[in-house]
Amino acid sequence: MRAEIIAVGTELLLGQIVNTNAQYLSRGLAELGIDVYYQTVVGDNKERLIQAIDIARERADLLVFTGGLGPTLDDLTRDALAEYLGRGIELHEPSMAKIVSMFSARGGSFVESNRKQALLVEGATPLRNDTGLAVGNALNVDGTCYLLLPGPPREMKPMFDNDASAWLKEQLGPAKTLHSAMLKFAGIGESGLEDLLIDLIREQQDPTIAPYAKEGEVAIRVSTKAADAEEAARKLAGTLTEIRGRTSSYLFAEEDVPIEATIVRTLTEQQRTLTLAESCTGGMVSELITTIPGSAVVFLGGIVTYSNGMKMKQLGVPAELLEGPGAPGAISAETAVAMAEGMRASADSDFALSITGNAGPAAAEDKPVGLVYIGLAERGRETRVEQLQLSGDREGIRLRAAKRSLYLLWQSLTGRC
Amino acid sequence: MRAEIIAVGTELLLGQIVNTNAQYLSRGLAELGIDVYYQTVVGDNKERLIQAIDIARERADLLVFTGGLGPTLDDLTRDALAEYLGRGIELHEPSMAKIVSMFSARGGSFVESNRKQALLVEGATPLRNDTGLAVGNALNVDGTCYLLLPGPPREMKPMFDNDASAWLKEQLGPAKTLHSAMLKFAGIGESGLEDLLIDLIREQQDPTIAPYAKEGEVAIRVSTKAADAEEAARKLAGTLTEIRGRTSSYLFAEEDVPIEATIVRTLTEQQRTLTLAESCTGGMVSELITTIPGSAVVFLGGIVTYSNGMKMKQLGVPAELLEGPGAPGAISAETAVAMAEGMRASADSDFALSITGNAGPAAAEDKPVGLVYIGLAERGRETRVEQLQLSGDREGIRLRAAKRSLYLLWQSLTGRC
Repeated sequence: MRAEIIAVGTELLLGQIVNTNAQYLSRGLAELGIDVYYQTVVGDNKERLIQAIDIARERADLLVFTGGLGPTLDDLTRDALAEYLGRGIELHEPSMAKIVSMFSARGGSFVESNRKQALLVEGATPLRNDTGLAVGNALNVDGTCYLLLPGPPREMKPMFDNDASAWLKEQLGPAKTLHSAMLKFAGIGESGLEDLLIDLIREQQDPTIAPYAKEGEVAIRVSTKAADAEEAARKLAGTLTEIRGRTSSYLFAEEDVPIEATIVRTLTEQQRTLTLAESCTGGMVSELITTIPGSAVVFLGGIVTYSNGMKMKQLGVPAELLEGPGAPGAISAETAVAMAEGMRASADSDFALSITGNAGPAAAEDKPVGLVYIGLAERGRETRVEQLQLSGDREGIRLRAAKRSLYLLWQSLTGRC
Repeated sequence: MRAEIIAVGTELLLGQIVNTNAQYLSRGLAELGIDVYYQTVVGDNKERLIQAIDIARERADLLVFTGGLGPTLDDLTRDALAEYLGRGIELHEPSMAKIVSMFSARGGSFVESNRKQALLVEGATPLRNDTGLAVGNALNVDGTCYLLLPGPPREMKPMFDNDASAWLKEQLGPAKTLHSAMLKFAGIGESGLEDLLIDLIREQQDPTIAPYAKEGEVAIRVSTKAADAEEAARKLAGTLTEIRGRTSSYLFAEEDVPIEATIVRTLTEQQRTLTLAESCTGGMVSELITTIPGSAVVFLGGIVTYSNGMKMKQLGVPAELLEGPGAPGAISAETAVAMAEGMRASADSDFALSITGNAGPAAAEDKPVGLVYIGLAERGRETRVEQLQLSGDREGIRLRAAKRSLYLLWQSLTGRC
């Protein structure tokens, strides 16, 4: 079954709201094994909506609408579909009774326009709305399926998950659904990862392999259609083993989590603690780590030292590293090491990461934008330091430096270096 | 000019990411006075992409693409458009030089697939990419305009705001364009602000008044169409004066900047310095402040104290506040005051903000999720403390606590309290 999602609402075209419904429905349809080929957004305009239906009808056999089922004049979806199909409109008595009783319970008088929310396209199956008033519609007309769902996410989501999904499964019959495995990578870019897997990607058929980048990390989704989880696991196993073998230096999780989640989990398992000494990342690494619930158990804290005075006073970085002719300066391997070691000793943590560099926009200490040093002090081991030359804007440099520092820590934690 | 936005990417159709680009572009096009009639999402499939172009070509005279300009095999947008237009592909030498130099600066060897990111549809105007590698494309073919922008928001947004918008203005000619003033507010929610301005919003015609919330702050855009900036200023003046008069306790900027930018600018003007002592926000306030270029002049640094040990050792919070029966605990007004005063004294800064609280997901110290204390120590003044009970998830609580702390500092800096 090939689906198209049609979101109806001028507020989407004006950019007043984000179309999160399209994502929710896409994911939900994928889980049912239904391929979404297009998403469309059209305004509250009957003529253009009918044109959109006509186009979608040519290229899909399931049209899922959200929005335009409400009480106001610009709620047109039901009318437009009825007109397109040459059908009438009928009242759904139970929905009407619910609306009337809701109004009397609130002590308000019934507003006539609300009657619209109890209407169905002639012959449609009603879809229950547990969190609002507008009844949903489901129709199969000559093999093309139509689902009409409300626009507000808190009404749309339960209606899709309950009545709409059940109705779709009936239409699909005992078919196969899509099962996916997600692999997450750090320390490598999207093109570098694709290079490692290029033959697998080129020859992919079933399972499919889709790489993508997000928020400073790279992910791969490996997918196949199967009747159940067991069959899916069997079909995915070979591809997953091959990918794992080639990417073990970078593969930090087999679920959709950021590397900071893996770090917090691993530190917790190993009962080890972390502190941070940040300069150019300005607290971003702390912020990432503390995003993870439970991080308080392993993350003692961190110090953001933006001034040289703070580096000396709080971290004990020697003045001769920072100031005076011939000093390596704040942006140097020596300072990164001193920051990490000073932080670790002061807090008596098992690990301390330090990051110092120039995130831009201008050169600092005559060091180029993008030059970053990362230090990793570990109890009982020699401190490591890595020099990076990153490109991009200030936020991009900071994010990549932060993620790279977590990658170095992950390597140490998992015995990869 | 009627526009259609075409987002290209199978990850959108699978629901792996939300199409925030469509919102950003819709809003940006509206500001240029361009109406968006449709948004379409299509996967990484050349045949379907060409069909989508063909449909859009019938119903729009500006096609704005995002996605599919990257280095990998499934990045097809440029090729699809060239094929649709019957044009060739040409190398943009400056973009190629930039890619090669980026690789050599990183010390990595050039990966051949990256060459793709320097390609243009024959005859296209290149659009500079300041935050990534893929060059954008702008074409006007027989009165239909095509813009090819990258998919990652951090590359797409600056390219649209800079080169693409400038190119679109050229295509539009000296028509009346939309001029807007942006007002930014902190310390008040969207509905609270709307209450203050409800009569203006109800009666608006020209200028229009549009409030919206973003990233823990509230903004109002006041817009009018005018031939030039001078005429626009004349038309906007009355409305702006009225809004300023009603909202002066909250209005921190008359441009689209976050409150941390106003804080850094004001501290710089006043030659005063700031330090931070964060617990539940975990470095978020430091991260926000250091996002602003030039923050190093006024922000000395901060300490993230997640453990009680760090609070005592690094900030000098007395043990009797934190531990033992009857102690107020880490999440208390007393500890917030001690953290702020300890931080300020240790770094000898003019201001120190402290934030301690429970961001969830579980109760801590028997304190409810969302309970947050903010302390503000200032040289020569009594330390202030504020108690908040915030709602929402962990990230929402952290963000609102961080923004609220900056609002308190802004009030002090500008003599509002």
